[in-house]
Amino acid sequence: MSDFSFAVSERNRVKRLHERGSYDRASVFAVLDSALLCHVAYVIDGQPYCTPTMFWREDDMLYWHGSSASRMLRHLKGGTPACLTVSHLDGLVLARSGFHHSINYRSAMCFGTARVVDDPKGKARALSGVVDRFYPGRAVTLRPNDPQEIKAVTVIGMRIEEASAKVRAKNAVDDEEDYALPIWSGVIGIKTVVGADDPCPRLQPGVPRPAALSPYSQGRALDDVLVETQRLYEEDLADS
Amino acid sequence: MSDFSFAVSERNRVKRLHERGSYDRASVFAVLDSALLCHVAYVIDGQPYCTPTMFWREDDMLYWHGSSASRMLRHLKGGTPACLTVSHLDGLVLARSGFHHSINYRSAMCFGTARVVDDPKGKARALSGVVDRFYPGRAVTLRPNDPQEIKAVTVIGMRIEEASAKVRAKNAVDDEEDYALPIWSGVIGIKTVVGADDPCPRLQPGVPRPAALSPYSQGRALDDVLVETQRLYEEDLADS
Repeated sequence: MSDFSFAVSERNRVKRLHERGSYDRASVFAVLDSALLCHVAYVIDGQPYCTPTMFWREDDMLYWHGSSASRMLRHLKGGTPACLTVSHLDGLVLARSGFHHSINYRSAMCFGTARVVDDPKGKARALSGVVDRFYPGRAVTLRPNDPQEIKAVTVIGMRIEEASAKVRAKNAVDDEEDYALPIWSGVIGIKTVVGADDPCPRLQPGVPRPAALSPYSQGRALDDVLVETQRLYEEDLADS
Repeated sequence: MSDFSFAVSERNRVKRLHERGSYDRASVFAVLDSALLCHVAYVIDGQPYCTPTMFWREDDMLYWHGSSASRMLRHLKGGTPACLTVSHLDGLVLARSGFHHSINYRSAMCFGTARVVDDPKGKARALSGVVDRFYPGRAVTLRPNDPQEIKAVTVIGMRIEEASAKVRAKNAVDDEEDYALPIWSGVIGIKTVVGADDPCPRLQPGVPRPAALSPYSQGRALDDVLVETQRLYEEDLADS
């Protein structure tokens, strides 16, 4: 599925600085798979909402649950148009004029219809998925979800109908005559990394950090970790 | 202005896990001022869009420019309802059941009416603002924006009518009986930090990195840097 492109419509066409845009699945999935947090836009009675939430991907389905659900779903049971966006900040670009200041980033916008996943099998699978996608093989090691918990969570799924990725990854680009100016210009890098562990104070004595969490090693770029755990999750799905 | 709260309505009331929510300006501004990137949700013909963009704050006005503008403004000249959301990912929370897995985060949702800033004075001020808010005192050191450039940029302003902040900052919270289970549980920290500089390859010889950029020192938490530069910007505005 990953070898072709999303159709381009008025909705997902990259309008501004379109040379930074692309529509192929590989580019879009690369941005999505490096992330854990997305922002979902949806509309209730003409009012837009932008809700941050964890999400995960299986092929061209995106899943999330939590706070966006309750508000959205009290209003719309049959599915609602949504836009799920992921972005990574990679650097601050300081140019020689205000106009050419920018940021380096990777972003993806995905359009589709958000629907509740309410068949019990699909929902149970999704609730394992949200754990295993980030923490390989962890779901089976946990106290299983009880029926009350499963009822309390709403899982939302959205097939990507259209999508675009947009990337800027270069140094300052100034007007030709401005390069001669004695003004400092360049990129200040920004990175999101794994920090220290803070084990639960009530952890039972002698319980080690699972080896399956080894991708989360301190100082490592979070997006590398997330791409690695996504690949492990996909292998797991393929095997099952 | 920062010492009172935003009104609570159906729109900004924190519905899920409401004990994590607050409505006072100080809490909302603390989340906003630690960020550079936001996601703006708006609606065109019933379709929601979620656009990532740089933004900045002056009192209870939020400003942004760029790609969200063109799409939004071809459709709506007189102002459009928008929701600007900022979020910070601080940690991954691994519990003893799937249900209690979570993340540590700080987020703010701001509601208002997005409008074009088109009076020339306000626009010029905003175009210096976007530079100076992040890079103290930098705007006057640059080649000034020319009239064509000013025309090419659309600046959008939105007064915060309603807002809420939501924060989770604690270790795993499990069901009482689950603490006895021999399952590793805890928080894996996530941090976003300043990385290395990559000076422009066409930088004139001998041009030093400006002292005013000293808040951006390698390894420092980006949110601390941004809060510091916001305070410097506010002092500057108060003096002018």
